[in-house]
Amino acid sequence: MPLGQRAGDRGDSRYCGVETEFSNEMPEVLNHNLAGGFDFVLAPLIDPSHRPSISMDNGDGFVLPVAASDLIVNPAQWSSHVVGKISSWIDLDSDDEKLRLESETALKQEISWASHLSIQACLLPPPKEGSFGNYARCVNQILQGIGNMQLWLRLPLEKSEPMENESEDTGYGSLGAALSDSWESWNSFRLLCEHSNQLCVALDIRRSLPSINSLFRWFGEPVRAAIIHTDAFLTNARGYPCLSKRHQKLITSFFELSFQVVISGQLVHSIPEESFAVFPSNDNDTINEAAPIRHELKPYVDYVAFLYQRMDPLSEQERFEINYRDFLQSPLQPLMDNLEAQTYETFEKDTVKYTQYQRAVCQALLDRVPYEHASTSQTVLMVVGAGRGPLVRASLQAAEEAGRKIKVYAVEKNPNAVVTLHSLIKLEGWENMVTVVSCDMRHWDAPEKADILVSELLGSFGDNELSPECLDGAQRFLKPDGISIPSLYTSYLQPITTSKLYNDVKSHKDLAHLETAYVVKLHRVAKLAPAQPVFTFVHPNFSANRSNQRYTKLKFEIPFDTGSTLVHGFAGYFDAVLYKDIHLSIEPSMPTTTMFSWFPIFFPLRSPVCVPSGCQLEVQFWRCCAPSKVWYEWCVTSPVVSPLHNVNGRSYWVGL
Amino acid sequence: MPLGQRAGDRGDSRYCGVETEFSNEMPEVLNHNLAGGFDFVLAPLIDPSHRPSISMDNGDGFVLPVAASDLIVNPAQWSSHVVGKISSWIDLDSDDEKLRLESETALKQEISWASHLSIQACLLPPPKEGSFGNYARCVNQILQGIGNMQLWLRLPLEKSEPMENESEDTGYGSLGAALSDSWESWNSFRLLCEHSNQLCVALDIRRSLPSINSLFRWFGEPVRAAIIHTDAFLTNARGYPCLSKRHQKLITSFFELSFQVVISGQLVHSIPEESFAVFPSNDNDTINEAAPIRHELKPYVDYVAFLYQRMDPLSEQERFEINYRDFLQSPLQPLMDNLEAQTYETFEKDTVKYTQYQRAVCQALLDRVPYEHASTSQTVLMVVGAGRGPLVRASLQAAEEAGRKIKVYAVEKNPNAVVTLHSLIKLEGWENMVTVVSCDMRHWDAPEKADILVSELLGSFGDNELSPECLDGAQRFLKPDGISIPSLYTSYLQPITTSKLYNDVKSHKDLAHLETAYVVKLHRVAKLAPAQPVFTFVHPNFSANRSNQRYTKLKFEIPFDTGSTLVHGFAGYFDAVLYKDIHLSIEPSMPTTTMFSWFPIFFPLRSPVCVPSGCQLEVQFWRCCAPSKVWYEWCVTSPVVSPLHNVNGRSYWVGL
Repeated sequence: MPLGQRAGDRGDSRYCGVETEFSNEMPEVLNHNLAGGFDFVLAPLIDPSHRPSISMDNGDGFVLPVAASDLIVNPAQWSSHVVGKISSWIDLDSDDEKLRLESETALKQEISWASHLSIQACLLPPPKEGSFGNYARCVNQILQGIGNMQLWLRLPLEKSEPMENESEDTGYGSLGAALSDSWESWNSFRLLCEHSNQLCVALDIRRSLPSINSLFRWFGEPVRAAIIHTDAFLTNARGYPCLSKRHQKLITSFFELSFQVVISGQLVHSIPEESFAVFPSNDNDTINEAAPIRHELKPYVDYVAFLYQRMDPLSEQERFEINYRDFLQSPLQPLMDNLEAQTYETFEKDTVKYTQYQRAVCQALLDRVPYEHASTSQTVLMVVGAGRGPLVRASLQAAEEAGRKIKVYAVEKNPNAVVTLHSLIKLEGWENMVTVVSCDMRHWDAPEKADILVSELLGSFGDNELSPECLDGAQRFLKPDGISIPSLYTSYLQPITTSKLYNDVKSHKDLAHLETAYVVKLHRVAKLAPAQPVFTFVHPNFSANRSNQRYTKLKFEIPFDTGSTLVHGFAGYFDAVLYKDIHLSIEPSMPTTTMFSWFPIFFPLRSPVCVPSGCQLEVQFWRCCAPSKVWYEWCVTSPVVSPLHNVNGRSYWVGL
Repeated sequence: MPLGQRAGDRGDSRYCGVETEFSNEMPEVLNHNLAGGFDFVLAPLIDPSHRPSISMDNGDGFVLPVAASDLIVNPAQWSSHVVGKISSWIDLDSDDEKLRLESETALKQEISWASHLSIQACLLPPPKEGSFGNYARCVNQILQGIGNMQLWLRLPLEKSEPMENESEDTGYGSLGAALSDSWESWNSFRLLCEHSNQLCVALDIRRSLPSINSLFRWFGEPVRAAIIHTDAFLTNARGYPCLSKRHQKLITSFFELSFQVVISGQLVHSIPEESFAVFPSNDNDTINEAAPIRHELKPYVDYVAFLYQRMDPLSEQERFEINYRDFLQSPLQPLMDNLEAQTYETFEKDTVKYTQYQRAVCQALLDRVPYEHASTSQTVLMVVGAGRGPLVRASLQAAEEAGRKIKVYAVEKNPNAVVTLHSLIKLEGWENMVTVVSCDMRHWDAPEKADILVSELLGSFGDNELSPECLDGAQRFLKPDGISIPSLYTSYLQPITTSKLYNDVKSHKDLAHLETAYVVKLHRVAKLAPAQPVFTFVHPNFSANRSNQRYTKLKFEIPFDTGSTLVHGFAGYFDAVLYKDIHLSIEPSMPTTTMFSWFPIFFPLRSPVCVPSGCQLEVQFWRCCAPSKVWYEWCVTSPVVSPLHNVNGRSYWVGL
């Protein structure tokens, strides 16, 4: 049964598995383990002592020594409760040619049998460090024709020295192997297999863990399972298994990312006899109540369930965002398209954002109009891009709070939103204070000049929805000492590993999708270095030679203890100064908390770039402008040189 | 006028140009230089003192200060006699933003003007070492829309310290710049521009030259011109300019590769007054005869013409092969397709090959039948894949030479060739010695067993036309002590730089062409390391577990003084042992001279691989076999990891 339930969370991480030995009494194995608290078994499908040459020697009558046929355990059971474990004797890079050829036959035979059983995933033995070219080639060949089945490549998480009681059947070899960085093997293996989205990872977790930065890399990889060995558990004061703080934190992160846990190994703790119910058991745990079955690994799964259940429930915002996780969206084209009512409604719910605007306008009014002129002076405030009026409301509330008189022009180009604006003004009785202008701010002929321009034209990457061009157009009707809210904004970028997004982008099989930016709630992502500022725009900008073209070269230092990394692209953010110290930000180090209007933006790379340990990553970004459009171009220039992306805005641009 | 004439050579290298200063008297410039012995000028098109901001300041009436309009010099003249020289003040990566933006405008303006004039190529100023990201981006944007015009990026050939009298107008900057490896700048620049086939190279040649290995890299690049500076010339005993031996050799290589020479600089030699006709002048040099014009650079072009005319004329084989240079062909599918008479005829002309076969058969007969049995013993010889009979003829001649009696079975699957064979036997009166068998050797039921199997089933890569599979099938009817001619063959590979072939492969815009092998007469290619053996097959092979699958890992050491390189793919060859020490080989270090039946094979890489200076290149090759086809898969695993190429033979295979 599942480890527990978290409201709104539909990830796989609530299912826990157990690694088992080969047995040809598969129904009993399943019954025992499912009753013992596990959701699935990681089990060999074919007797590991079998060699394909045996079947050849025995002639036509030979039957594969399988764990159970599809008549003994039906395909639905195989599919729901078994991950097939490929024989670990298989060695496709052996110097012994006979073993190599036999391994190739056996691997294909086992996968084919798993496929016949409708098994959803098979666990592949770990690659031998530095020598898995032929293994990768065979797996790649197999990946071309296995329908939806996933192959999980088994890899050690640690890169430290092996534990003393290393169990035989996981297939790790010598000391040398364990000292290397398994992520590098994984990376080479998946590059050879061209990022197949059916090639995933299962990580073996033992007592020692590598550095946090090195661990983080896996967060952007298609890890499906964390195989926790019983020898990774410590013993608590009462003799029960528990995990170190670092392990606990890691497993909790894995749960967040929907990795499944699998318990592996023997009972290595001497559990007191009295009871197994130390941790809160599930209410609907009917099997256990009906016929309590003593599974020797129950203390471990109970501890894992405890960790699962201890996690904070998902917040309302997280529940809202869960469907958007790692889901690519095209950025808005607000100048070319008119937003729909539903979109306005969603954005208007972001109270934090409007509170910030209200604070900014309030502070600006207080600074602009001294107390002694409060009753006589009227400030002209223009909301450009007023939409359905949330900034009008925030401005009016700010004026009230500040005790200042304002006159508001609400300029909006979307005629549908203008209808709503008129209706709002009547409903609220704002007729004397607010004038609605149905016009594109770049072309409006204003009847008077404004003290304050208020706008919310920012995209996830700051200027990417053409706020600079709009505000340049609007500042014509700003007084020489007038101000803009926001007064400044800066875009930010950071390199990320994100197998999921890269595969989604690549799945379109065209160049255009590989050089387009996407709005996306980043989730299964490894952030490799702190974000850096890219382009800054200041408003108003009355200088004669102003240009909204930009060019920046960024150099990212990836922390040394991370090891080598693969960069699939760049996450983009913005930070905006509304007024003085009042910001709106989605930059990860200083976000405006609980604001939800903007997900990050993602700029992919056409070919992911390997950054060897200790190397710098240099990337260049351009903001290019033409009469009818604005676009970005980008490239990597170190450690390797990529082609220029999105040349002349051929694949992705924002229309003026 | 051209430097000279070589029979059969239609390369561009017989045309010589001269670099000139800006002049608005373009007709005079052209007349002077064409009359002075040059075929074209490398000339600025727009006054280099002009800045785009001037035209803006001057308003609408401003006219670009061009060298000459298309009314003064017509487009046909511009196109035949002028390469446009882009202003060298242009600096797209200046820290001065104004200069940067002005440079962008100017570059686009000058190229646009050149395009208007129908100029075929423009020379771009050299990139600043380590800082040309924005330059590359602008050039890349321009490359998207300039029709057929070529852009020649100017680069110094040397990586040594700059000469003292470095001329100002070539645009090279500081000492630091000249010390670096200009090939690396070129490589980054063209990677950013995605290997555009309109982006080419012009090399500045001065007195010092880098190492030979480093020079070789340019042989695989799209170099269009070698700009030889007058200060690169030495002075001979009589006071005339000449070049060092190393320079001479280099320029001769450039001529072979169709690079054009351009002379640049001032007269720096004090030439004796008496004459300009030190070197043989052209017979059809009518202009000079009619009105001898004294061009101050004439001594230099005369020397270059001397070098050109001194080259050996093309051999008959070279003239035959000239049309095949760097031209991709699909390898034959001899098992699936039947060859045509024309193809047989071409191959039969390769007398060297058949002489080797005759020597091999002769030696084998002498070894097999002692002199004392010569008149009594008859050797059964089977020619498998007899085609139109050249091996039958060679075998009969060998028997005569050896004084041994043979009986020949000529086995051929192509029914059309069988018709020719019957006709040949009648013509030659071989009826008593030769039996024609119209059958696929793999299925023939032979009436007796053979002493010697003779075949010529080799492809450019040895086993790539399925010789192993055919001979495995044929060895059924070989006596236990019988022999095969050839008895052994090995394929070879070496990494190469070849911009031309890579661009040709890429131009198909599909994956299949990027992972197919091609037969090609390699010409504009840089061979980066000695070829290494790949797969070996021995015949006959009676072992029980024989397999024609193969797997090899190759590690290439690129000579350290080469510098960094780009590998576009691998050139493949074979060496075959016909009998004992009698070989057929196209491996470059030990080729069978004047044999022309096989061009090399070329295995491309989907993405060219950069190999930094001093790094090893590791590549893996597989020969895979399935019931109906044989194919290769390959990948690079160091210094970077490529995807596996041609998975499951999806793009390229040979049918059984």
